[in-house]
Amino acid sequence: MTLEGKQLIGQQAVLSNGNAIHAVDPATGETLEPGYKAGSRAEVEHACELAWIAFDAYRETGLEVRACFLETIAEEIESIGDDLIVRAMAESGLPRGRLEGERGRTCGQLRLFAQVVRNGEWLDVRLDPALPERQPMPRVDLRQRHIALGPVAVFGASNFPLAFSVAGGDTASALAAGCPVIVKAHAAHPGTSELVGRAIQRAVAKSELPEGVFSLLYGSGRELGQALVRDPRIKAVGFTGSRSGGTALMQTAQERPEPIPVYAEMSSINPVFLLPEALKARGKELGNAFVGSLNMGAGQFCTNPGLVIAVKGEALDAFVAAASEAVKDSAAQTMLTPGIHDAYMQGVDSLLQSSTAREVARGATGESQNACQTGLFLTSAKDFMSDETLQAEVFGATSLVVECTDLDEVKHVAESLEGQLTATLQMDEDDLGAARMLLPVLERRAGRVMANGWPTGVEVCHTMVHGGPYPATSDSRTTSVGSAAIYRFLRPVCYQDLPQGLLPEALRDGNPAGVNRLVDGHRET
Amino acid sequence: MTLEGKQLIGQQAVLSNGNAIHAVDPATGETLEPGYKAGSRAEVEHACELAWIAFDAYRETGLEVRACFLETIAEEIESIGDDLIVRAMAESGLPRGRLEGERGRTCGQLRLFAQVVRNGEWLDVRLDPALPERQPMPRVDLRQRHIALGPVAVFGASNFPLAFSVAGGDTASALAAGCPVIVKAHAAHPGTSELVGRAIQRAVAKSELPEGVFSLLYGSGRELGQALVRDPRIKAVGFTGSRSGGTALMQTAQERPEPIPVYAEMSSINPVFLLPEALKARGKELGNAFVGSLNMGAGQFCTNPGLVIAVKGEALDAFVAAASEAVKDSAAQTMLTPGIHDAYMQGVDSLLQSSTAREVARGATGESQNACQTGLFLTSAKDFMSDETLQAEVFGATSLVVECTDLDEVKHVAESLEGQLTATLQMDEDDLGAARMLLPVLERRAGRVMANGWPTGVEVCHTMVHGGPYPATSDSRTTSVGSAAIYRFLRPVCYQDLPQGLLPEALRDGNPAGVNRLVDGHRET
Repeated sequence: MTLEGKQLIGQQAVLSNGNAIHAVDPATGETLEPGYKAGSRAEVEHACELAWIAFDAYRETGLEVRACFLETIAEEIESIGDDLIVRAMAESGLPRGRLEGERGRTCGQLRLFAQVVRNGEWLDVRLDPALPERQPMPRVDLRQRHIALGPVAVFGASNFPLAFSVAGGDTASALAAGCPVIVKAHAAHPGTSELVGRAIQRAVAKSELPEGVFSLLYGSGRELGQALVRDPRIKAVGFTGSRSGGTALMQTAQERPEPIPVYAEMSSINPVFLLPEALKARGKELGNAFVGSLNMGAGQFCTNPGLVIAVKGEALDAFVAAASEAVKDSAAQTMLTPGIHDAYMQGVDSLLQSSTAREVARGATGESQNACQTGLFLTSAKDFMSDETLQAEVFGATSLVVECTDLDEVKHVAESLEGQLTATLQMDEDDLGAARMLLPVLERRAGRVMANGWPTGVEVCHTMVHGGPYPATSDSRTTSVGSAAIYRFLRPVCYQDLPQGLLPEALRDGNPAGVNRLVDGHRET
Repeated sequence: MTLEGKQLIGQQAVLSNGNAIHAVDPATGETLEPGYKAGSRAEVEHACELAWIAFDAYRETGLEVRACFLETIAEEIESIGDDLIVRAMAESGLPRGRLEGERGRTCGQLRLFAQVVRNGEWLDVRLDPALPERQPMPRVDLRQRHIALGPVAVFGASNFPLAFSVAGGDTASALAAGCPVIVKAHAAHPGTSELVGRAIQRAVAKSELPEGVFSLLYGSGRELGQALVRDPRIKAVGFTGSRSGGTALMQTAQERPEPIPVYAEMSSINPVFLLPEALKARGKELGNAFVGSLNMGAGQFCTNPGLVIAVKGEALDAFVAAASEAVKDSAAQTMLTPGIHDAYMQGVDSLLQSSTAREVARGATGESQNACQTGLFLTSAKDFMSDETLQAEVFGATSLVVECTDLDEVKHVAESLEGQLTATLQMDEDDLGAARMLLPVLERRAGRVMANGWPTGVEVCHTMVHGGPYPATSDSRTTSVGSAAIYRFLRPVCYQDLPQGLLPEALRDGNPAGVNRLVDGHRET
């Protein structure tokens, strides 16, 4: 497949006039062709106009049509074959196995959303039948369903060039909800984006949907993205990236004449609590497993364990010793982009120069110019709680161990944390009391609480919460991974006394759409 | 019952030092005793501290305990007896029948939320059981439930001194979700607020709940309310009132170090579309019924029909003639406060001086100094679409008829509207085609679409959507009336591989809480 370096607007491929965006192979520093000339407001305008035209028709497609569309996208992505993996490897520095797995996850989540769409529970259909005889006032006939919010702007993420990019979780859930999607491609992987964008274009055509259901734009800096979020036809935003990028989008969205929701997944250091009995029984084993999680994807996972909290003593020393050995044995891995590598180096430097944290171990340095050297640092609970810079996310394979004097101080540290995607308990049976004490704190602070696992590895399923209080995300009421992500792009509408011929199918008498319905507060059977 | 004019903080009644807030009887201009000395940051601090202390215990109360608490509040409100109605009449100028009905609605919605809490569906429990044999990777055990967001700040509304004030819809739904509530009393009805606040205090004590579950604060101007929304322990805000008040709270909430959701129900003119066949068949009847809805509560309902849209011609003339007669026959009603009356007079003046709208009819002037004189104005679609001031809400019994040249122009007017709480179709069988053309536009613009009714009258039930796109509300994904309002104050948490002894009851094996659960994407039966 030949890459053309064009904006994909509806069914067209359009050459823009801006400066060319080039991917860089982070392993070699080589510039990759073609250049993608940056779009401007004209392309935003065009894509938004098409999306708006498509919206009313697309949101009322039958459940089966929409589900098949999602499945067709998955098929079209698979049909690209190895070209996709090869290009994604070159643009991200990620190894083949990881990207093949990520492609499977991407197609898997499109198929999961197809199931969700077919099931129809997301419509949240409710009926309160008329009660003409009720005293003192009759009740009218009231019915409710959820409808799509409108066209959605999705910002591709650097760290998942497939699963959280052009056809990633945000796109899949927004399309499932009935929202047209305009993706701003991440500048780090424009070619991967084009390949996937073309696959969605083909799926739109094969499914005979209005072309505006999908567009893919390229722009440099923040200009094009900001213009997209400002466009009045855009009704929601999905974003995965930095805290500064996410908060900038939140502000733009709030300053619009009509503010809109922004679902930004931003910053999380994913605390791991080593409870005393578990630490005593298996400190060394935990140290090794911890570094395995820390090094996954060169630490560039949103759920990377950036913080370890425990009571100081021999057992923690054993953990730190084992972790230090594992860190020293860690090979350097290429990071996703030169920019991410620079930010990582700055984060590590700030720890190195901190008067409150000390270096415990460093991994191997790498040959590649963007190699991530694994790092482990240590601080005291007092210093951690008094120096808020120690809570800043260092995006990459570096973590900080916080030594506490006792369990009370562990709880204080937990209470001092910002919002997180995850919180982990390493615990044995005799730690149950300590775990019970911490659980309410962790529930308040994180979207996912786990025992005896590691936070990296996010299952795409019905129960997953990849979310959490700010700054982990901009909206703790939602998840960006898993089937519940569809609810981000929906709003309820109530229909009062509408004639059957005007009612949407799912609300009609006799339930012709066959969806789960709540009737008078009870599940229809 | 003697009113004391104090802040109710937890179980205490505290006298503050600020300037005294006095209610005014809007019918007579008489100042009502006692004065309520305004609180300051100290009272906000105290109430937030108690709410925070109460939060973890309150959010984990059993479903039955919490349901009984809501029912006890209803009983305690009823036990106040006629004192509550008499004081509310004096403070609001509303007639006895209306306030007795509103008390019934207030207690009814507390009891509805008790049912909702018992049912447990709001927990949205989901289970994805472990799949240890799955290839290529086993699946861990994942469970999800919803938990309360945290303490909620509620701003009492002027126009529903019972049903949307101290123990109104926002308070009931937040308490149902497991959130402690701090109410800022509306300055228009401080005595009514004290009576209801004392009832909630008694219910907290009888239910043996932590005292911080509820506090009631009085403050003048915006200072106390802003301090409340800025407090880091407050995690969500419920507000019903003006667009300027709501947007100010939205901005404050966004500027916090941790932004929080604001549910502000603000501004809506509730368009009514008279479709041609209905207008032809029953223009006169519609004109009379319309003015009946317009005059309800002196036009001080959020769902007041402030806009009528139809194709011009004889049939519309007949409607306008009938409506004009009914307007002329309308007695003046006392408005809620001198401030609301002033704003109404300004809104009417702006229509009187407009070059694009003309007066069609005015009702009787009143004896009382805050009387609302009903008004009907008329404009053309072209003028309406070119003069955005004509879309501004005039809070009170004044409405604007928009004459269109044809159905296409009706649709253009619909497309030009801001977000609305409701949109109404007056239609006969032969209007189905026109209704089908308009429905997609109205769904995008409003939270509730109705046929052949009037927007005033909001049923408290499972299907109700009292919401809609901005500026009708700050968050179109939610409703502030009806049982779905509980979802505003919840967020999902995922539990991974937690031992049974650590899991919340609703998530444990065997479903000991007996709640509806989604297992592997299917409803458990």
